[in-house]
Amino acid sequence: MAGNRAVAYKGPGKVEVIDTEYPTFELQDGPGVNPANVGRQVHHGVILKTVATNICGSDQHMVRGRTTAPSDLVLGHEITGEVVEVGRDVEFVKKGDLVSVPFNISCGRCVNCKKRRTEICLNVNPDRPGSAYGYVDMGGWVGGQAEYVLVPYADWNALVFPDKDQAMEKILDLTMLSDILPTGYHGAVSAKVGTGSTVYVAGAGPVGLAAAASAQLLGAAVVVVGDFNTERLAQARSFGCETIDLSKGEPHEQIEDLLKVPEVDAAVDAVGFEAMGHGGKEAPATVLNSVMRVTSAGASVGIPGLYVTGDPGGVDEAAQRGALSMDFGTGWAKALTFVTGQTPVMTYHRGLMQAILNDRIHIAKAVNAEVISLDEAPRGYEEFDKGAAKKYVIDAHGSIR
Amino acid sequence: MAGNRAVAYKGPGKVEVIDTEYPTFELQDGPGVNPANVGRQVHHGVILKTVATNICGSDQHMVRGRTTAPSDLVLGHEITGEVVEVGRDVEFVKKGDLVSVPFNISCGRCVNCKKRRTEICLNVNPDRPGSAYGYVDMGGWVGGQAEYVLVPYADWNALVFPDKDQAMEKILDLTMLSDILPTGYHGAVSAKVGTGSTVYVAGAGPVGLAAAASAQLLGAAVVVVGDFNTERLAQARSFGCETIDLSKGEPHEQIEDLLKVPEVDAAVDAVGFEAMGHGGKEAPATVLNSVMRVTSAGASVGIPGLYVTGDPGGVDEAAQRGALSMDFGTGWAKALTFVTGQTPVMTYHRGLMQAILNDRIHIAKAVNAEVISLDEAPRGYEEFDKGAAKKYVIDAHGSIR
Amino acid sequence: MAGNRAVAYKGPGKVEVIDTEYPTFELQDGPGVNPANVGRQVHHGVILKTVATNICGSDQHMVRGRTTAPSDLVLGHEITGEVVEVGRDVEFVKKGDLVSVPFNISCGRCVNCKKRRTEICLNVNPDRPGSAYGYVDMGGWVGGQAEYVLVPYADWNALVFPDKDQAMEKILDLTMLSDILPTGYHGAVSAKVGTGSTVYVAGAGPVGLAAAASAQLLGAAVVVVGDFNTERLAQARSFGCETIDLSKGEPHEQIEDLLKVPEVDAAVDAVGFEAMGHGGKEAPATVLNSVMRVTSAGASVGIPGLYVTGDPGGVDEAAQRGALSMDFGTGWAKALTFVTGQTPVMTYHRGLMQAILNDRIHIAKAVNAEVISLDEAPRGYEEFDKGAAKKYVIDAHGSIR
Amino acid sequence: MAGNRAVAYKGPGKVEVIDTEYPTFELQDGPGVNPANVGRQVHHGVILKTVATNICGSDQHMVRGRTTAPSDLVLGHEITGEVVEVGRDVEFVKKGDLVSVPFNISCGRCVNCKKRRTEICLNVNPDRPGSAYGYVDMGGWVGGQAEYVLVPYADWNALVFPDKDQAMEKILDLTMLSDILPTGYHGAVSAKVGTGSTVYVAGAGPVGLAAAASAQLLGAAVVVVGDFNTERLAQARSFGCETIDLSKGEPHEQIEDLLKVPEVDAAVDAVGFEAMGHGGKEAPATVLNSVMRVTSAGASVGIPGLYVTGDPGGVDEAAQRGALSMDFGTGWAKALTFVTGQTPVMTYHRGLMQAILNDRIHIAKAVNAEVISLDEAPRGYEEFDKGAAKKYVIDAHGSIR
Repeated sequence: MAGNRAVAYKGPGKVEVIDTEYPTFELQDGPGVNPANVGRQVHHGVILKTVATNICGSDQHMVRGRTTAPSDLVLGHEITGEVVEVGRDVEFVKKGDLVSVPFNISCGRCVNCKKRRTEICLNVNPDRPGSAYGYVDMGGWVGGQAEYVLVPYADWNALVFPDKDQAMEKILDLTMLSDILPTGYHGAVSAKVGTGSTVYVAGAGPVGLAAAASAQLLGAAVVVVGDFNTERLAQARSFGCETIDLSKGEPHEQIEDLLKVPEVDAAVDAVGFEAMGHGGKEAPATVLNSVMRVTSAGASVGIPGLYVTGDPGGVDEAAQRGALSMDFGTGWAKALTFVTGQTPVMTYHRGLMQAILNDRIHIAKAVNAEVISLDEAPRGYEEFDKGAAKKYVIDAHGSIR
Repeated sequence: MAGNRAVAYKGPGKVEVIDTEYPTFELQDGPGVNPANVGRQVHHGVILKTVATNICGSDQHMVRGRTTAPSDLVLGHEITGEVVEVGRDVEFVKKGDLVSVPFNISCGRCVNCKKRRTEICLNVNPDRPGSAYGYVDMGGWVGGQAEYVLVPYADWNALVFPDKDQAMEKILDLTMLSDILPTGYHGAVSAKVGTGSTVYVAGAGPVGLAAAASAQLLGAAVVVVGDFNTERLAQARSFGCETIDLSKGEPHEQIEDLLKVPEVDAAVDAVGFEAMGHGGKEAPATVLNSVMRVTSAGASVGIPGLYVTGDPGGVDEAAQRGALSMDFGTGWAKALTFVTGQTPVMTYHRGLMQAILNDRIHIAKAVNAEVISLDEAPRGYEEFDKGAAKKYVIDAHGSIR
Repeated sequence: MAGNRAVAYKGPGKVEVIDTEYPTFELQDGPGVNPANVGRQVHHGVILKTVATNICGSDQHMVRGRTTAPSDLVLGHEITGEVVEVGRDVEFVKKGDLVSVPFNISCGRCVNCKKRRTEICLNVNPDRPGSAYGYVDMGGWVGGQAEYVLVPYADWNALVFPDKDQAMEKILDLTMLSDILPTGYHGAVSAKVGTGSTVYVAGAGPVGLAAAASAQLLGAAVVVVGDFNTERLAQARSFGCETIDLSKGEPHEQIEDLLKVPEVDAAVDAVGFEAMGHGGKEAPATVLNSVMRVTSAGASVGIPGLYVTGDPGGVDEAAQRGALSMDFGTGWAKALTFVTGQTPVMTYHRGLMQAILNDRIHIAKAVNAEVISLDEAPRGYEEFDKGAAKKYVIDAHGSIR
Repeated sequence: MAGNRAVAYKGPGKVEVIDTEYPTFELQDGPGVNPANVGRQVHHGVILKTVATNICGSDQHMVRGRTTAPSDLVLGHEITGEVVEVGRDVEFVKKGDLVSVPFNISCGRCVNCKKRRTEICLNVNPDRPGSAYGYVDMGGWVGGQAEYVLVPYADWNALVFPDKDQAMEKILDLTMLSDILPTGYHGAVSAKVGTGSTVYVAGAGPVGLAAAASAQLLGAAVVVVGDFNTERLAQARSFGCETIDLSKGEPHEQIEDLLKVPEVDAAVDAVGFEAMGHGGKEAPATVLNSVMRVTSAGASVGIPGLYVTGDPGGVDEAAQRGALSMDFGTGWAKALTFVTGQTPVMTYHRGLMQAILNDRIHIAKAVNAEVISLDEAPRGYEEFDKGAAKKYVIDAHGSIR
């Protein structure tokens, strides 16, 4: 039990599997760890043997070199695993439990956690509200694309699967509970998708596909997904979505062709600041502006897509300081509501687990989950970056295949 | 009953009292009337003898010449009056009733009205969802700064005061039900102000003051109002608000001085696109950006302040087409929600009427209501434009004084 | 166009097709018409040629002779039809439109309608809030199990289907929009059914089946339906519900067998005051008490099942004056919420129509719709009263078959 | 620090101050302690030096001998105190902090706590969801009417006052945060009291008065309080409520005299199962039935008043097994919603603290707080039982007077 192998960021475009420390119940110093967190006691935590840990689009922001992430930062915030060690303050999670871990770490003791706003927990990140495993500027909690990982505040954070064998049968679905399924679902809920809604989802990456599948689960009448990537659009069609190829014209025109009206009841921005304009150049406000245009008056817009406070690699000076040129008046005239931010995973993961276990949603198929080994992770990052219509699930101990 | 006198826009900076037509139960052609509305039958309407009709900040956008409003457009969308004629299809509103009229005209028959979203009624404005009396591009419903005015869909729109004598005693408060009190209240509700909230209201004009008074009614612990206008700030202090003079520094610094923390639980933008930067120059995104900065993670921002789809008089090309340079990533990192648009007055006016009649809010004092005659209206516009800390109430028939 | 044939109540256990008056835009005197409503002008109404009108369990209360309904009262409150005449005050509904009509008549002009509480409209029934077609003590609006029927406040009440041909293809589903689908759906919504919920529905009659199908649409993980009627339970299983036969033991025991826990997340009482105890005798509080027992702490209970203020045919004196012996302390200890009353159909019918038109729900199959002619209505009443696992749809003009 | 003095139940009608054990971080055996809880480790807890601890109406149920409470059970669940010892797993609460403790103990780790339903925590009481200090059948957590008390899960449960000196100045208000202020507030919130509501509160004991004061804070237009006790009604009038003396007639008649309509918008049952009928005899369903009568169609009824699953001392067999004869049909016809159960104190206490600290509510005056010493507790119980219009606050260490 002395060692640990993990996927680490090694510089722009470069990901490697490294040897690293086996976790302890104390936060150790290391790449990207906030000094204020070094030495923090974590007796409320458990150590997991990782069973499934997925590559996420937001990991790519770091890997592309658009952040200040240091070399050797261990990646991975989508974690499902088996409890192998239990801290002394843990009462209800047991050794042997198979658990899903929300990507946003939270304490269960601050005013925001008490309001179910776990995405902006005040006690885990010395820099700002909110934290995550394996992410730059998030406090320094070590990433979970590893054989073993420490999960703090385990009684609060861990979702224990009720039956381990049953769970292993659906592990490719359940692994999506740590991030993208709740994130897509939150986008749909924030957009007030309900029975009979027509919905536009901008972006057919994993979060967009999860938002689309979630919209169906929430009773949407029609879900339209837009992207430039035809392979990803085919993936959206595979589970009953309508699609529009953004290279062929404006969303509102294509929506009118599909629905006979140019507007939808609800919209989700599953792209964020790395949006592309029609010329194929980055244009950070493009998606927001087009979403305002296609959404009916009175609607809500769910924005799970990430927007950043600063983007050193941005296309221009405004983008670099995170300023977007938004057609805000269009939104105001339509009395739109905009819901931003990370998803409070804990608000949703239990109900979604129940939906998975009872065959109400097949999220692994929807996002086209592909299992890879820890050693294949660098290839997964590369293919995903090139736009593969897949969601890469790292099988850290070979327990899935 | 043949005549009617009314306040009309006569060109940039110019307002005059003109002789105009007495209303009929048919929408007549005239300045700013949408051709598709000409000849529309209004047997569901009533004709009011105006008792009180207020000058609004949004009237000033037209008067300053920043819109395409035509000359002779009759102004006024804040209307309280006595029913003098009843259309043949009106069942419940009676001749003699004293009523408050929501500024946003709605039909009570479309899908949005059925959802209480009267601010985006689909049947009253051929151009877009939503309408108002006496306003450019809003369908052509004649304004109410006049002796008489037609109110369509009267059973739906009119709020009948339960006791006329009692109502006349509080008429200066009740006249605020047609727009600014519900608008300020909606701003506070949208910002999720509740028991014990700390609140920042940007702007100490009448809507800002109404938002502040509403926040108090909703149980706020502390309400902080920010503006450059010291007279208006004194007005805010007169009913228990804390204030910050924006000429003296950034809001977040001054908020920290007042509250010991640099952030508030809830914020309201009661300014809109004509926001001023520190240099005294218009800077349309200033208020939105500063509000994002001073608001706690997880909060909602209520935005009753008007943002426009296009502003021919804007400071630069971006402003002219309604594009704002927003620090959207700041909002996203804090998981903020932004609530925009006109207020659905009907959602709020009955409860606020009850609050006024039972002395739970003194809105006339809070906004410093001043009664003027119809002939004094041009002076009212002028003084208000110069920043008077007053809300001008036109006493069209001398029934108030 | 001079005549009209209709299904009428003729005394306990007796239903007949009679010749009656063709409707006019004035409420005429007749059996069960409130004198205060006689002569009421209905220029806001339309006359429908009935296309589909269903027999409802609540009609049976009258037919069984348990109410004060007079002979010759025309029955029927589940109405779908084509507009053949349009009142002078109707603006948006057009001749030829195919429309669904909410069973609860509402004015669109009172304070409750303005709050979407159309089930307790204040202006349509002189006796109390709320009204319905063809029902005793509901104001005297003539029933719709007829060739033609008057629908008041048509712009407000009527839901126009967007495409007539498409609608006729799904008419057996769409006819359920007038009552039981929204009623079942409201039961599920009131019980806070959502993604992943486990749900117990008491009663496998049409409303219970509609509640079960709605719970699935709302994302429930497992829906359990309980009844004594094995044919109806088989119907519930036909679309994926679990079932429990109440003759075989207490619900909580059978729920534990199915779910491994003795409690569900949400429960719906789709039975009401005519509940049966285990001995096969009426026991009005049985369902409420058993529902409290099987529901988890913190849950909501949706109660679309009818409870009456007085029941002359009740089993004992308490039942006759509508007093129930409720284990209220059990509910209180679990912090339950109880949601009662008629369903505000208009809140739900549009979204459910969209869900039907896009194949998201197959309600006609779920409730086993059977088309009968107007002349077969008496047989339909009789079979339904005996517990047939069917929903009878009267095809008044032979336009469905 | 070896000893501890506490108020204990000594048999029907008898309360005494006894010598007892100083708390440790392990749950010890004792009167009323559930065997399954004996030996439980409480390293997540803190030990408080009690500053203020109040006598509650629900303590009286035990003292009157209507429960199975054993002799020597230490009473008291309304606790405010200073932290004197900190368990090894407590991270954020510090020695010296002055804190308010919710009466319902909760773990912050179960599914209900994660949904803010702390009143039905699953991990603190082996018998059923929900727990409290010093109460029969609630798991055996020792009561707080003592010099020292153990508070488990302190990071989760304790509300730390931001400034100790400021807090001591308002300690008589802040002490109400542990139970009756949130309980009354929850009653008002559950009844959907808002701006302009008319409200009926049944019962003028401390919870009723707290509900009335909360209704005012929530913006109610008029609050009417009903009771038989004229001294308590005078107390209600002292802060602006209207009152009705129930000995003088039915509530609906007196409400009509006050409001000109016989119904209110919202109602709160602050009495519960020990309700009195007009003859002065206990009649458990009286308040529920009269509240249904006086409440407008569409309203919600908040029911903070306690209803029990069994009441050995009940007036008849039905009452003894907790069955109430409810006019449920009256509620159903009006489409009422009934909200029952303990209050999730944690949902409300922080906002109410802010309201107190900023002078938005004066709850100590509203309930007529009277400070007594620990030794005077038996007198307090006796006077309170006789109907004194006071709320007794025990000053366990003489730090208040």
